[in-house]
Amino acid sequence: MTNPRADRVRDVAKLATRAARNRRRQFLAEGPQAVREALRLDADRRAEGGAPIVVELYASESCLSRHPEIAHLAEATGRLRLADDDVLAAMADTVNPQGIVSVCTMLDVPLSAVLAEQPRLLAVMCRVQDPGNAGTILRAADSAGASAVVLTAGSVDIYNPKAVRSTAGSIFHVPVVIGVDPAAFAAEARGAGLKILAADGAGPLDLDGLQDASAARRAGGEGTAGDYRLEDPTAWLFGNEAQGLSQAEKDLADHRVAVPLYGRAESLNVGTAATVCLYASARSQRR
Amino acid sequence: MTNPRADRVRDVAKLATRAARNRRRQFLAEGPQAVREALRLDADRRAEGGAPIVVELYASESCLSRHPEIAHLAEATGRLRLADDDVLAAMADTVNPQGIVSVCTMLDVPLSAVLAEQPRLLAVMCRVQDPGNAGTILRAADSAGASAVVLTAGSVDIYNPKAVRSTAGSIFHVPVVIGVDPAAFAAEARGAGLKILAADGAGPLDLDGLQDASAARRAGGEGTAGDYRLEDPTAWLFGNEAQGLSQAEKDLADHRVAVPLYGRAESLNVGTAATVCLYASARSQRR
Repeated sequence: MTNPRADRVRDVAKLATRAARNRRRQFLAEGPQAVREALRLDADRRAEGGAPIVVELYASESCLSRHPEIAHLAEATGRLRLADDDVLAAMADTVNPQGIVSVCTMLDVPLSAVLAEQPRLLAVMCRVQDPGNAGTILRAADSAGASAVVLTAGSVDIYNPKAVRSTAGSIFHVPVVIGVDPAAFAAEARGAGLKILAADGAGPLDLDGLQDASAARRAGGEGTAGDYRLEDPTAWLFGNEAQGLSQAEKDLADHRVAVPLYGRAESLNVGTAATVCLYASARSQRR
Repeated sequence: MTNPRADRVRDVAKLATRAARNRRRQFLAEGPQAVREALRLDADRRAEGGAPIVVELYASESCLSRHPEIAHLAEATGRLRLADDDVLAAMADTVNPQGIVSVCTMLDVPLSAVLAEQPRLLAVMCRVQDPGNAGTILRAADSAGASAVVLTAGSVDIYNPKAVRSTAGSIFHVPVVIGVDPAAFAAEARGAGLKILAADGAGPLDLDGLQDASAARRAGGEGTAGDYRLEDPTAWLFGNEAQGLSQAEKDLADHRVAVPLYGRAESLNVGTAATVCLYASARSQRR
């Protein structure tokens, strides 16, 4: 493909808007890392006889020669079309898509499907607004081995190109549930045996206390932090950047837990708080 | 002030550029949270007979009436000038400065001044490029109670308005050292009794192992992770977003330490890695 003004190029570029994404149930993955992870998931799905993930795929010859593993996966899809750099730039949301762009089918799954798998650790974003924060939290959840990521209604669109970029491929690793009502989530998650924790700087429980109790239990002691144990299957609620969790969201939790602030910062960035909470849970659940 | 095209307004707005900031040794703080922390530091410095931090201060009447504590601090400086919203918008880097903008003198200190205070925990950014990442890491370092934050030569300008915003006021809490040569830093820091750790996904030491050893020592055991103890005074090196730490930077460290990846993510965002490392150190040093 050589014409950056072709209809097909414009159709791909339109996926930068939420309206087009929702109408077509498709989104953009750009750059070698994201597209490679999309292609790996696509190969797994096709091996299981499932529907494809990568429905369109455009790359430059130079990108494919720099990334032979991607070239191999790309050819196996039968959907690869070679494209000039200016075509790729016209398709992509970034100035420099690094030679490869794919159109993917949306990946989100129903909450019931996640809960049926007896998840041990969920990250729930409650009205997180910044696409970079949402993508970073999804990536941190993947790093911490979370079972799934949930976004409540009113959160940023996780298929926003900036959010997808910030996941660095993790959107193709971790099941995602979107548009969830917080109260319905809490009821269903609790029914599936999960404890619900609100990350709340003003919370009466302290994450360090929970970690100490967990470490004491590992060392054969009793551990003394009430009825909740950090080893328990847990869903963490993380709030909006400006306002944190609303009172209604906090009221849904079994416990409100503060991440300790050792210095003079008044509060944590939501991505920082989520990272500390998810890693604390992962460590306790896995030691 | 009512004229958004006045020379003084233009002079403030020019601080969005690095050249103007470096020439005048000044930077912008925008919004109530950042300006309040600037004013608190300014009051502390003036009480000690030091030079002012807030050299110019512009706010709308409605902002001051919404934030009486800021109004009180602002009036005490003798530098407050009332300004219309369109004047404030023309001064600020953000579309919406929320009614208050200040011009501050640069805060960075020499490395020798930081090391003279016998620091226990330093965060060192090695060529971190994104202003949002740099600001977020500074804020996380403040949250974890780090003694100071160091940026090596070739890092993003921490006085970039987006970086300052991302610190959420923490730039006025934590001493910052900029433009440092990594080798000189390592030699001086080691001379001051600090161990130097490289956050490196391929590192032979594992942060969980260090934390287990630290917990075992607290419980009265030996702890078995070689000669390094997470309780020791420590400087963490964090690398560039795309390339991580260079070989030369890694070679400066006493140990290379990996943050565990429990899921399928290939690597951590630098802000996520820094958060996990700094909180692990803070927790071990303070329990």
